[in-house]
Amino acid sequence: MELICYANQRWQPLNESGVSLQDLGFKRGYAIFDFLRVAQGTPLFLSQHIDRFFQSAKDMRLTVPHTKEELARLVYEIIEINRLADSGVRMMLTGGNSEDGLHLGTAQLFLLNEPITPPPAEMKKEGYQMVTYPYRRHFPQVKTTDYSMEIWLRPMVEEHLANDVLYHHHGIISECPRCNFFIVNTAGNLVTPDSNILKGVTRNTIIEIAREIGILVELRDLHLHEIPAAREAFVSSTTKRIIPVSRMDDVYLPVNGPVTTLLFNRFLEREQAEIANEGKP
Amino acid sequence: MELICYANQRWQPLNESGVSLQDLGFKRGYAIFDFLRVAQGTPLFLSQHIDRFFQSAKDMRLTVPHTKEELARLVYEIIEINRLADSGVRMMLTGGNSEDGLHLGTAQLFLLNEPITPPPAEMKKEGYQMVTYPYRRHFPQVKTTDYSMEIWLRPMVEEHLANDVLYHHHGIISECPRCNFFIVNTAGNLVTPDSNILKGVTRNTIIEIAREIGILVELRDLHLHEIPAAREAFVSSTTKRIIPVSRMDDVYLPVNGPVTTLLFNRFLEREQAEIANEGKP
Repeated sequence: MELICYANQRWQPLNESGVSLQDLGFKRGYAIFDFLRVAQGTPLFLSQHIDRFFQSAKDMRLTVPHTKEELARLVYEIIEINRLADSGVRMMLTGGNSEDGLHLGTAQLFLLNEPITPPPAEMKKEGYQMVTYPYRRHFPQVKTTDYSMEIWLRPMVEEHLANDVLYHHHGIISECPRCNFFIVNTAGNLVTPDSNILKGVTRNTIIEIAREIGILVELRDLHLHEIPAAREAFVSSTTKRIIPVSRMDDVYLPVNGPVTTLLFNRFLEREQAEIANEGKP
Repeated sequence: MELICYANQRWQPLNESGVSLQDLGFKRGYAIFDFLRVAQGTPLFLSQHIDRFFQSAKDMRLTVPHTKEELARLVYEIIEINRLADSGVRMMLTGGNSEDGLHLGTAQLFLLNEPITPPPAEMKKEGYQMVTYPYRRHFPQVKTTDYSMEIWLRPMVEEHLANDVLYHHHGIISECPRCNFFIVNTAGNLVTPDSNILKGVTRNTIIEIAREIGILVELRDLHLHEIPAAREAFVSSTTKRIIPVSRMDDVYLPVNGPVTTLLFNRFLEREQAEIANEGKP
């Protein structure tokens, strides 16, 4: 099936579309994006993703060429056109063509509708295995397109028979390339980093849910040396929702403990409510 | 005039060319490049640029789909096709299309021939003004396409009425986004950073020249606090050759001192020799 994307201000086949070689998004790596999941035709947490897309744009001095409402309409439109029931929508915004490669041009918007693979059932059951690596993104609060470290590290991750890498800076945990990280500490509190991270839409929803059900949430620096004592640990992302962590380097952790399970079930309820409501807030 | 580029394994008009939206070079910022100057139709320091391009590719686990000799022929070809007497040739190599956005695809080669603007004569005469900023690239020895910090910082640089930014890490100077940095210290030695930098082709040539004419060269960490005592300072790059530095933050420096002038004149001689030899080593 031929996928249709939005590029250069019009709908066109993805295979025939491209970004200009002179666009700063390609030539100089200057671009931001956001990515949301579509379930049963409904874009999940749409307004949160659009808000974050606009915030990333603002942080990078880019102007989105549409209002939030217009962008939401384009998202509904790309879902309608492609008719992938379960998929992802990627919104990208680049620095545009630049005369000197130094000053921003007119920001260019791209929308892609992509098939997505949900995490395998074993991963949910057996847990996510992680290796740690010292790294901090240059614009940590912004969803830029720079995933070069993740891709470059991939052979190392696989050599360690791990699923993913967890970044830290001098022992202070930040995030995985595409997930946020949580632990349940010995006091039963939910702890997650709050600085030098991309604040995931799934992460924010989990924090909301945890507070609603009376779990104390600690938004603070989390050190690697706190991991061995953790009762539970999990990662969250748009594609993965909540996946328990079973191993961090050589520390093994119990999976699907009570807090992880409760949060996961409540998260599914939120999703169902979104679907019933067709994504409208 | 319509410029011709090399993209998707063929020559085509630049304006009609693009990179796939699914190429990791765009979608995930995974790409390397090199840039050389063409003077009177001759690609300058061609073999050094091609060697570095291959080294960048290797460091990023990318395979150049040509031999060095074939790539050199493509460079001569793009110059021949576009007939821009004085210009730049940009060679780019991307991670290619990836099924999962995580594992590298087949590396894609792009060649662009670009008009270049030589630095204005006043800049050479009056000097380059710089502001410092704490930053270190993630793959410092590799010429990746990630210039997002430079572009993002541009308004700050211009607010300070400066020409460029000099990066440092805890006070240890590394490089400018597109230039290397040198000082002549009180002993009359040429000092330039050697770690956490991209080793410029112009930089390497300057070091060679300095050694040939008996100037002691110190390749070592250079601290910001050494700047006020510097007798001379300059930046080097493919496009700028050698430009004296007149100001670093609020430290003013004398421009076009004897060492800077001598190195510049010798560098021009090297260039002339390259042109006479039509770029052949």
